[in-house]
Amino acid sequence: MKCDYCGNEAFYYQRYSNKHICKECFKKDIERRVKKVLGRKIIKNNVKIGIGISGGKDSLVMAHILKKLFKHIPNAKLICFFVDEGIKDFRETAKFYVEDFCKKNKLKLKIIKFKDEIGYTLDEIVKNNYLKELNIGKPCSFCGVVRRYLLNKYALKERCDYLAIGHNLDDFCQTIIMNYIEGNIKNIIQFGKEIDDDKFVKRIKPLKLIPEDEVKIYADINKIEYQKDPCPYSSISYRHKIKEIIKILEEEKPGIKFSILKGYEKLLKYIEFKEDIKKCKICSYPCSGEICKVCLWLKKLEQLNKINKN
Amino acid sequence: MKCDYCGNEAFYYQRYSNKHICKECFKKDIERRVKKVLGRKIIKNNVKIGIGISGGKDSLVMAHILKKLFKHIPNAKLICFFVDEGIKDFRETAKFYVEDFCKKNKLKLKIIKFKDEIGYTLDEIVKNNYLKELNIGKPCSFCGVVRRYLLNKYALKERCDYLAIGHNLDDFCQTIIMNYIEGNIKNIIQFGKEIDDDKFVKRIKPLKLIPEDEVKIYADINKIEYQKDPCPYSSISYRHKIKEIIKILEEEKPGIKFSILKGYEKLLKYIEFKEDIKKCKICSYPCSGEICKVCLWLKKLEQLNKINKN
Repeated sequence: MKCDYCGNEAFYYQRYSNKHICKECFKKDIERRVKKVLGRKIIKNNVKIGIGISGGKDSLVMAHILKKLFKHIPNAKLICFFVDEGIKDFRETAKFYVEDFCKKNKLKLKIIKFKDEIGYTLDEIVKNNYLKELNIGKPCSFCGVVRRYLLNKYALKERCDYLAIGHNLDDFCQTIIMNYIEGNIKNIIQFGKEIDDDKFVKRIKPLKLIPEDEVKIYADINKIEYQKDPCPYSSISYRHKIKEIIKILEEEKPGIKFSILKGYEKLLKYIEFKEDIKKCKICSYPCSGEICKVCLWLKKLEQLNKINKN
Repeated sequence: MKCDYCGNEAFYYQRYSNKHICKECFKKDIERRVKKVLGRKIIKNNVKIGIGISGGKDSLVMAHILKKLFKHIPNAKLICFFVDEGIKDFRETAKFYVEDFCKKNKLKLKIIKFKDEIGYTLDEIVKNNYLKELNIGKPCSFCGVVRRYLLNKYALKERCDYLAIGHNLDDFCQTIIMNYIEGNIKNIIQFGKEIDDDKFVKRIKPLKLIPEDEVKIYADINKIEYQKDPCPYSSISYRHKIKEIIKILEEEKPGIKFSILKGYEKLLKYIEFKEDIKKCKICSYPCSGEICKVCLWLKKLEQLNKINKN
């Protein structure tokens, strides 16, 4: 088959657009979509972007494309943040990919360690049975919140204008559908609306319009090597079910992922929701209560540490 | 197993409540939920309720429960409306069940015929190839709109305060999820909000909190006989897929149907959406354009009739 754009040999059939595409046109198409998501508000002179990088396909593909897009933008700066939670074997492998990638792509890299920041690795938190003490069900609930907190902390420290997160189209759809199904209004709204606060670096999601399959293909074409094993703590059974369901829907109606996202964004425009954003009394980050989750946990961890030592 | 409410022999395990239930308690539970949906605003003296009745399990179960609930309400009146679209064999069978049911339950019945109202049966519309001329894809799209129009017309004529429609919990969830997935904001909003207009009889959906399975069980326990064959024109492949998906979700998380509905209703409260409701220039019913769909179609059908006769 020939590429529907340029006539060269096609290598991929994009079902939702009903087009056959060659490698070069595929790359261009992906990069064009990232550019569209960012827009001129973000792709501009003197901008500084922090990139949350994990070593997985999404964050490395994102960093690769951002590097390409900002290459010729005067005085634009990129810096990668890698959070090392301290998960034995798993994180070392990830770090290997990340360091190699950043070296090859001449990207500045900052490694942030749970051990340095909160006094414990995630492995230690789990082994010490602290999750139960903190009333947290799964390691991911702890890790996700702390990771987001640290990424923001360092993006702020580095005076980044934006913090780029590697969520792809499938991640968006799963979260949207899960929130719909669970009737989780607060999440429906918070997931979509920006927090406007000095202490909060605006998040951008460059891969918003790229389906997961195509992130993988883009990585392969560009010979981006990434970590393939899942995190040993991950327990994604429900999200996985939702993933399957979206797959069924996409097979039935190609392009449904785009319409889930589009519909959600349209819906957000009609939603009137005002919630007082308070400041954490300890770290002054925006949060919904008096003290943010991370500070609350850190305080408790300190007490637990004291109890253990006595 | 014993009934978790009264200790008698249970006949059914309600997975989402994790309860075993006997027949009597099951009936009471279903009726209690219908009562809860209607509330005191609707269950009151002197109210008149029109009941859209098709001969299927949902509408007959609904009529059965409404009859029971309004039995002792002073001067409350119920009237059933059966729309005969003129679908050979299928509608005759339905009519048999409906007439038998209304006779047994001493319910007033008004039969409304497409042939009398719009000059054609649905069979004739399809056979004459009029759907294509009217630019309508499927018979259901024509039939559904005309049916709703006629039910409203007669409920208005009979001075009903409310028009009861037999949508069960599964119907609600399917519609909600379909609209979410397709990003159909207008439908998301219109499906949930009431139209406040003199020419529009307020719709009520008494079976909103009853899952489809339990409507069936209620019909069986109460020996309500209903039509089981599907309409020969029905083409429900996409809705059927959504039904399967909701089934998967419900198996994964029992009670998810209730949370889909609850979440949707919560969401509606936050939505600000104002649309000018115009009046159809011909029939003065509320509609979004200058002329309502039904009047537009009827005008075209008249023209088509003239052309055919010439």
